[in-house]
Amino acid sequence: MIELPTTSRQIRSLVTADGHLELSIATIDLPVPAATEVLVRVEAAPINPSDLGLLLAMADVSQATSTGSGDATVVTAPIAPAVMKGLAARVGESMPVGNEGAGTVVAAGASPEAQALLGKLVGFVGGATYGEHRAAAAFMCMELPAGATAAQGASCFVNPLTALSMVENMRMDGHTALVHTAAASNLGQMLNRICIADGVQLVNIVRRPEQAEILRDQGAEHIVDSSSPTFLDDLTAALVTTGATIAFDAIGGGKLAGQILGCMEAAANSKGGEYSRYGSDVYKQVFVYGGLDRGPTELTRNFGMSWGLNGWLLTPFLGKLGLDGMLRLRQRVADELTTTFTSHYTDEVSLVGALDVTAIQTYAKQATGQKFLIRPV
Amino acid sequence: MIELPTTSRQIRSLVTADGHLELSIATIDLPVPAATEVLVRVEAAPINPSDLGLLLAMADVSQATSTGSGDATVVTAPIAPAVMKGLAARVGESMPVGNEGAGTVVAAGASPEAQALLGKLVGFVGGATYGEHRAAAAFMCMELPAGATAAQGASCFVNPLTALSMVENMRMDGHTALVHTAAASNLGQMLNRICIADGVQLVNIVRRPEQAEILRDQGAEHIVDSSSPTFLDDLTAALVTTGATIAFDAIGGGKLAGQILGCMEAAANSKGGEYSRYGSDVYKQVFVYGGLDRGPTELTRNFGMSWGLNGWLLTPFLGKLGLDGMLRLRQRVADELTTTFTSHYTDEVSLVGALDVTAIQTYAKQATGQKFLIRPV
Repeated sequence: MIELPTTSRQIRSLVTADGHLELSIATIDLPVPAATEVLVRVEAAPINPSDLGLLLAMADVSQATSTGSGDATVVTAPIAPAVMKGLAARVGESMPVGNEGAGTVVAAGASPEAQALLGKLVGFVGGATYGEHRAAAAFMCMELPAGATAAQGASCFVNPLTALSMVENMRMDGHTALVHTAAASNLGQMLNRICIADGVQLVNIVRRPEQAEILRDQGAEHIVDSSSPTFLDDLTAALVTTGATIAFDAIGGGKLAGQILGCMEAAANSKGGEYSRYGSDVYKQVFVYGGLDRGPTELTRNFGMSWGLNGWLLTPFLGKLGLDGMLRLRQRVADELTTTFTSHYTDEVSLVGALDVTAIQTYAKQATGQKFLIRPV
Repeated sequence: MIELPTTSRQIRSLVTADGHLELSIATIDLPVPAATEVLVRVEAAPINPSDLGLLLAMADVSQATSTGSGDATVVTAPIAPAVMKGLAARVGESMPVGNEGAGTVVAAGASPEAQALLGKLVGFVGGATYGEHRAAAAFMCMELPAGATAAQGASCFVNPLTALSMVENMRMDGHTALVHTAAASNLGQMLNRICIADGVQLVNIVRRPEQAEILRDQGAEHIVDSSSPTFLDDLTAALVTTGATIAFDAIGGGKLAGQILGCMEAAANSKGGEYSRYGSDVYKQVFVYGGLDRGPTELTRNFGMSWGLNGWLLTPFLGKLGLDGMLRLRQRVADELTTTFTSHYTDEVSLVGALDVTAIQTYAKQATGQKFLIRPV
């Protein structure tokens, strides 16, 4: 039996009433797992874009400053008044952070499903993963395949299930091919591998030539670069070829979402047919699932009346997919963890290292190819 | 039996390859109704916003010029190159115009449902209503109630079914109150009467104080003026009171659609509850059903991830509602044609009068309170 400590350290994010973000390290009593829970010693946890909202509270990290050192480090950064309006519900509450991670089950509740995981290396989801220990529902743990490391299992939920859900959502809504923006991201590379394996046509939109190169090297067939002067023509041509009428957009701000809808409309109209005063009756959908550009979204509505632009989140979609569907996706992730669902990290940091001002300013950028892994223990 | 002419006159809209709109009067052979059709002598047809796309092809009517007179009148106006791209499918094709109208059935096909309408005054939908005669499916005709005039029945489809469908759509998607923009329009006034009758809470958004006055005089409870400096606060307060989470927007361009989503989010968050990093999980919907502002739509995405902005058209919605639902709505329109579904017209014009340049420039503006009725015969 592993000797357990009595306390555990974790990263905390606090929004103060006077409009500041404060990041710190807290020491808490070691969590005690309930009957259906396990206690995971967290060995690796990724910093995903979906973690940054809670962690950084949209503070201006370019103005971040730090005091103290080691576990006494406190990082402070200002939050704009307009942003503070949306944060009222969390002011004054010191919040643990981190959606997912991986580590060893060092204690377990009395239930058979919890006991079955004792001593196993698992990936799990459920919050507060940027800490040394986390009590997690056994149901939310995935035993890693033999030989896999905690680092390999750290991102086994959010990105894999998001990428798989995009393809599921495409099918559920009756589309046959899809578009993805910020396509050279870890998630985008994963989606590209899924689509190649499943024979689904994917239009990858990137923002720089070197990102196109990454995807081309991985066998992507349809890659368009939004920085190219021929972008709109290139995108329309790829949409004509693939027939994609649904897109998942990580960027949100700027003109891209509207351009995708406009090019889908041009692609639909290029197939001929009768003139309709309301535009093509082909339904065109863009789901915004991220906010790499926090600026306003601008739509030039040159895409008729049959279109949708909607927010998209993983959890409600999994609810729509149902338990059987979710278990099917999880099984595929477990089976292909080190192939299809590989993640790459450029930086590994400790809990204290994650509070380094330069590190924060780096991961806050969400730059393609730059990805941090926290090593809590 | 009414003596029938052998020919019939109708308005035509043509887009030329060199980028011009041409409006003219054509003389055609009198249409012969098929077995299930009737021949309507069109006595009144409204110019609805939904007619303008086909009629005016987004030409710059401020530069319209006219030659000839009477049936030889030809109006010409330039079309911007960017707009021409979307019109390729109709270039060179002289198209009849007009979605709906009312008149007397002067001939009928052999089927019993067509024969039953002979001699009756009907409202009908089906295109080419800006002409003296139109063969229309008997199924698409509604016999007007005793004592109603053609003018009263001219708008018995598009606006009434659109307004009723907004309330139906609200219920179908699980919302309990709704928002409407350009709320002092004929359609908006109709929707206000429906909501009062049905006990549905409606937030009316208008753009000028005098429009607010029109609705207040008609018993509207929640009216907010987007030209007011307190607009966002007023709208949020009305959304808190009513709980409206779905909006129908006639304007499309500018910031309004995004402001509605933002205020819905603020209203949802004002009800307290736990902080969520992804915003409120209350689903917020704006349907864009018109384009009074053709400029870009600008969304400041301060409304979390649970939202949708979608194009909306009547016909696909009626398809979703199904035949029984549509017949139920039509029956209500027939029953309440001269009360709930009253329309007001400020101008009546002949076919030739509809081609008067000043008239065109007036109805192209779609100004609230200004509505044209064409009197083909």
